[in-house]
Amino acid sequence: MIVPIELTSSQSITYDIMIGFLPKLHFDTKVVIVTNPTVAGYHLQTLLEKISARELHIVEVPDGEVYKTLQTVETILNQLFEYKLDRKSLLIAFGGGVIGDMTGFTASLYQRGIDFIQIPTTLLSQVDASVGGKTGVNSHYGKNLIGAFYQPKAVYIDPAFLHTLPAREFAAGVAEIIKMAVMFDAEYFSLLENADLTDEATLKEVIRRSVELKAQIVNQDEKETGIRAVLNYGHTFAHVIENETDYACYLHGEAVAIGMVMANRLALRLALLSQSEADRITALLQKYNLPISYAIKNIDEFYDHFFLDKKSAQSRIKFILAKGIGNHTIRDDIDAEIIKSVLREFGQHQ
Amino acid sequence: MIVPIELTSSQSITYDIMIGFLPKLHFDTKVVIVTNPTVAGYHLQTLLEKISARELHIVEVPDGEVYKTLQTVETILNQLFEYKLDRKSLLIAFGGGVIGDMTGFTASLYQRGIDFIQIPTTLLSQVDASVGGKTGVNSHYGKNLIGAFYQPKAVYIDPAFLHTLPAREFAAGVAEIIKMAVMFDAEYFSLLENADLTDEATLKEVIRRSVELKAQIVNQDEKETGIRAVLNYGHTFAHVIENETDYACYLHGEAVAIGMVMANRLALRLALLSQSEADRITALLQKYNLPISYAIKNIDEFYDHFFLDKKSAQSRIKFILAKGIGNHTIRDDIDAEIIKSVLREFGQHQ
Repeated sequence: MIVPIELTSSQSITYDIMIGFLPKLHFDTKVVIVTNPTVAGYHLQTLLEKISARELHIVEVPDGEVYKTLQTVETILNQLFEYKLDRKSLLIAFGGGVIGDMTGFTASLYQRGIDFIQIPTTLLSQVDASVGGKTGVNSHYGKNLIGAFYQPKAVYIDPAFLHTLPAREFAAGVAEIIKMAVMFDAEYFSLLENADLTDEATLKEVIRRSVELKAQIVNQDEKETGIRAVLNYGHTFAHVIENETDYACYLHGEAVAIGMVMANRLALRLALLSQSEADRITALLQKYNLPISYAIKNIDEFYDHFFLDKKSAQSRIKFILAKGIGNHTIRDDIDAEIIKSVLREFGQHQ
Repeated sequence: MIVPIELTSSQSITYDIMIGFLPKLHFDTKVVIVTNPTVAGYHLQTLLEKISARELHIVEVPDGEVYKTLQTVETILNQLFEYKLDRKSLLIAFGGGVIGDMTGFTASLYQRGIDFIQIPTTLLSQVDASVGGKTGVNSHYGKNLIGAFYQPKAVYIDPAFLHTLPAREFAAGVAEIIKMAVMFDAEYFSLLENADLTDEATLKEVIRRSVELKAQIVNQDEKETGIRAVLNYGHTFAHVIENETDYACYLHGEAVAIGMVMANRLALRLALLSQSEADRITALLQKYNLPISYAIKNIDEFYDHFFLDKKSAQSRIKFILAKGIGNHTIRDDIDAEIIKSVLREFGQHQ
């Protein structure tokens, strides 16, 4: 199953996203697999049976969002220099979103850019992070604030890697799938309400639909000057939550789930969403045991943290809101007091 | 005087390089000027009389190639976060090549890319570094090994800034001008042999010709997959010299001057260049008091250091050689023993 990416807007870059069993791959170059000990422990042996190269190295970085930093990227770069990679060498990102984001970013930086491919091993990275070329790291000031737009040469999505994924991480991936459905596709949302994702064929079909939706958006707007921003539904809130909790309490998808509930409360206030629609979204999140509440310590501080989010331009915050289920709107004209009052309300209703 | 840049190969990016008095510029955005204490001391007041913005900040970084590191870039990024720059904000690189490379790189990384403009204040950066979008920093492993291709929105070249430039730095810029002439334009080379660069009209004309040559090359090959590599004439050697001397002994242009003499000795051995042509190039370098000798400590080590240079692919080193004056060739098939013997010879003939 192949989903093509065609970036015709600013550059003519094309590559394929393959969904299904990972094929045998041979590279006549130096190849470095970037992974973490958790993924390596479960799946590195499987991967090594599929990949061959003129020279193959493995770089392991610690597992976790807290290590998604410029320091870790520099550590990886230094390893690549030790291995004397050249401009024709290839990196393989083998892991979840953190590994994918950092490996792509490292590839973009090494000698001003070498090739990389994505082999995502979590549901979140399979349906979202591995597609679209957003790479980067977190800063002390917020998530993904340092990075590059840099497209992989190919993405191989093998659902078999998900067998070892903890339930909590699986659910975090479902949050991004729900996000896509709420924003773009009411029929897909209904399918998810009734789907059993423990069924392998269903799971594969759901992955395919999410990847296709994502690819369509990225093809239209690689650099996020327009429609791509819609993929940040829930994220404006999620980034503040993750930042406030030092990335230690919630998986990214979990923070997005909470963020969507917050965004929905704002959409409700603006009469963009009905109570029953908001309830359906909350119920679908709960079906996967995703968190829907968060204790905001200080409303003003929470609000101030929005302004470090990179999606805000000229000090106006863009809110991505559901306009019913399956449709969306972007609003940057909402009064601070309305937002703070909605945040207060959110605190009272959980 | 305007030289247009038109990158039509992989992307459709165009911007202008203006040569002459810096005009008044107003920006309706947040603007951060990145500079160093030396340039700021001489020229910041002049610049501030020309630039106005909705909000204007100045970031100073220490002066010198040794500070062209990922650490300094992170320091700048943190300042930008403190100033809460958004995606529409603008950076201005105000200084020499180090400032330009780091500012452009920082702009490429901040929220995955914001605009920047170049206002180069050294001859080297005016004729070379500010044009073409190569940005980046040095690594412990070598020069410019970490970076991005990222084009400025505009380049303003005002020769008036050169009045305060030390003679040694001026000469280092001339080295890159000589490089362009040797590689591409025999008539321009003759002009340089007879030119008096203390004459302002002559200097402006020489800057224009160099910028035009550079722009032509970059327009053909932004990402250096072909002809752009020719601009690295002398650089393969220069990077090793700079690395061996910890960037502490030679200005970049000085190392390039020595590197050209080394490359010429190799070209002589391969009968690409005549002795009298090599002598003319050396004489022109000497006219500007550029260094032409270097004590190689260990031939084998010097040779091994080539392999870290980013211009080498799949462990073959590309040598950019003069094919007579005004023409060039790229060779990656030269036996290690020949190169080492030429390096030995270079050591004996100085």
